[in-house]
Amino acid sequence: MKTHLKTTILFLVAALISIPEICGQPGGQTFISPDVQKDRTVTFRFTAPNAKDVKLSTQMLKAPQSMTKDEKGLWSITIGPVDPDIYPYCFVVDGIQVADPKNSWTFPNETFQNSVVEIPGDNPMVYTIRNVPHGTVSYRYYYNDELGTRPVVVYTPAGYEQNQNQKYPVFFLLHGTTDTEETWTKVGRANIILDNLIGDGKAKPMIVVMPYGRAFPKIPKGQTSLRDWNNLQEFSRDFKNNLLPFVEKNYRVRTDREGRAIAGFSGGGGTSLYIGLGNPDLFAWVCGYAPGMLKNEFDRNNAVPFANPELTNSRLKLFWIGVGKEDPLYSVIQDYLKVLDEKKIKYQTYLTTGGHTWMNCKKFLNETTQLLFK
Amino acid sequence: MKTHLKTTILFLVAALISIPEICGQPGGQTFISPDVQKDRTVTFRFTAPNAKDVKLSTQMLKAPQSMTKDEKGLWSITIGPVDPDIYPYCFVVDGIQVADPKNSWTFPNETFQNSVVEIPGDNPMVYTIRNVPHGTVSYRYYYNDELGTRPVVVYTPAGYEQNQNQKYPVFFLLHGTTDTEETWTKVGRANIILDNLIGDGKAKPMIVVMPYGRAFPKIPKGQTSLRDWNNLQEFSRDFKNNLLPFVEKNYRVRTDREGRAIAGFSGGGGTSLYIGLGNPDLFAWVCGYAPGMLKNEFDRNNAVPFANPELTNSRLKLFWIGVGKEDPLYSVIQDYLKVLDEKKIKYQTYLTTGGHTWMNCKKFLNETTQLLFK
Repeated sequence: MKTHLKTTILFLVAALISIPEICGQPGGQTFISPDVQKDRTVTFRFTAPNAKDVKLSTQMLKAPQSMTKDEKGLWSITIGPVDPDIYPYCFVVDGIQVADPKNSWTFPNETFQNSVVEIPGDNPMVYTIRNVPHGTVSYRYYYNDELGTRPVVVYTPAGYEQNQNQKYPVFFLLHGTTDTEETWTKVGRANIILDNLIGDGKAKPMIVVMPYGRAFPKIPKGQTSLRDWNNLQEFSRDFKNNLLPFVEKNYRVRTDREGRAIAGFSGGGGTSLYIGLGNPDLFAWVCGYAPGMLKNEFDRNNAVPFANPELTNSRLKLFWIGVGKEDPLYSVIQDYLKVLDEKKIKYQTYLTTGGHTWMNCKKFLNETTQLLFK
Repeated sequence: MKTHLKTTILFLVAALISIPEICGQPGGQTFISPDVQKDRTVTFRFTAPNAKDVKLSTQMLKAPQSMTKDEKGLWSITIGPVDPDIYPYCFVVDGIQVADPKNSWTFPNETFQNSVVEIPGDNPMVYTIRNVPHGTVSYRYYYNDELGTRPVVVYTPAGYEQNQNQKYPVFFLLHGTTDTEETWTKVGRANIILDNLIGDGKAKPMIVVMPYGRAFPKIPKGQTSLRDWNNLQEFSRDFKNNLLPFVEKNYRVRTDREGRAIAGFSGGGGTSLYIGLGNPDLFAWVCGYAPGMLKNEFDRNNAVPFANPELTNSRLKLFWIGVGKEDPLYSVIQDYLKVLDEKKIKYQTYLTTGGHTWMNCKKFLNETTQLLFK
């Protein structure tokens, strides 16, 4: 009896050390989710004994798909084979979206909780983590008198620490609306794509600066769009007065316009065009990845290039616009390209399949970083 | 009519650019969560029109507390004033734990999804982000032939990049069971605590190395404890054969034992004692933060120090154990201290209030980093 009690206490303490310290999901069930197989099928599992309906919601599927419950309350679904890529997903539990508690790879965002899964292909993709020299992803802070301490993620290529006399071109890469400074590395694998392209000699070694796009706390989170005029003004000021000086003080970057590029996705794409085209003294390389801009914003956001198309053409080494044909922004971006044609502003396009997704973001990054600084 | 249609389309496109690209929570409601007030009360909000019961679960409270639904299906609760600290929390929606979709500050973990909130005090705390020189938090990869590419987070103090001739002491800091290499910075604010302590002259400038503790994929995620013997062996090998050489190759670190420290929380605390005490040639500073070790593991894990207590005492500059009095591990740690007494192994303790929490982790880190390398 006494031994039994001791065993029980021992077991309890063992469980305490092993289980999450905070509120973990109930039940001691051990299972894997997501469970990716070599044939590119993937099984998702979620414990919810009392739920009536659990669906998998993911851009791997056209629509959310129902999961099946076993006798222990474990819901599961196997899908695929799935095209190799990195996909966001979540469970919809009786209508509520839930990130996968068994997956620590989460999607940095200010309005939803999603998990992320990689479906590897037979051969390495451009975003596959390979045993090549890796750059460094640094989390830094810079200071803005008005906005306070601002986060920024900076990629320095392999060899940066060793080559103390080398200056590098610098690429500013902006996230989408509601994303954060971590989304380009965590979901877009920007660092790995650069590692691979630089390692394979396809892209020039460059420094990539990924700032946080919201002018928080002046522009509150989740309340206004990244593209709102006030945020655009505030962020542009922060960019020029604080971020750029911080980068030039702390990193060995080129300070000529031909050594600077800017790109962004969605809301951040609108921002990258606004800042890039609006400051021809600063940038010679400007890209928009499914850039977010409404028709009635074209004139306002493009005042500088529209005022002097010839100067714009002569100063830009690259003006690049990419978008997927199923992207809801495809049509408005076509309208924008027509206006550029009317103004005789030169640009390059990359039209691909797919929608307004981070799968396409990786394609856009892969395409553009091979063009930059050449 | 035509204008109306145009306006509608314009509105739809505007919404598309503004809303999350992936599965955001339903409804266009704009609200803030968590909403922290100056009086240290905090309001949490969550949209779930069809849920029957939504609770807030957090270590700020003794037990989960029910939230109240308004006519639009928005659940909310205001609690506090709360003691200034950084707390994990989640919503329990009809029994399912959900991280706050409106909060991009998440808790890196392999078995649950939690959000994190800071309740500021009237004066800055040791973990408060201040406008002082900040170190750099770097996400790096190193390679292990057996385990593949391994992630590690490295903190270098402010001035590291400039002082190219300076060598720094190095502090290995291990996460708890089910945590990841990001938990010490994201939840424990290790980088900010060091920024502040170093800035205030209270801690020596040091490099902090935060590896990923699970020997994945050999030791699968969520299936076995970090403390399991196989993981301990595998991780120790990885530590000595791959991590330590990587750090010494890529960072200007001291390579003498008095220039090396190791600490860890919970399961990682057990590991830090095992590696630290087991390798007196490598470490002169060894700390356990509520270290996870069962009574029947004492002899196995402490074979080296128990075999030669005198040598252990003579070589250690610090052997430090901290634990909260409400920590479920308090009793087993007391047992461990008794055994250390019997063996005449010298140590220092720090007994505080509170439980097995990351609030206490910050205290432990604050206490120990002021002792290291002095």
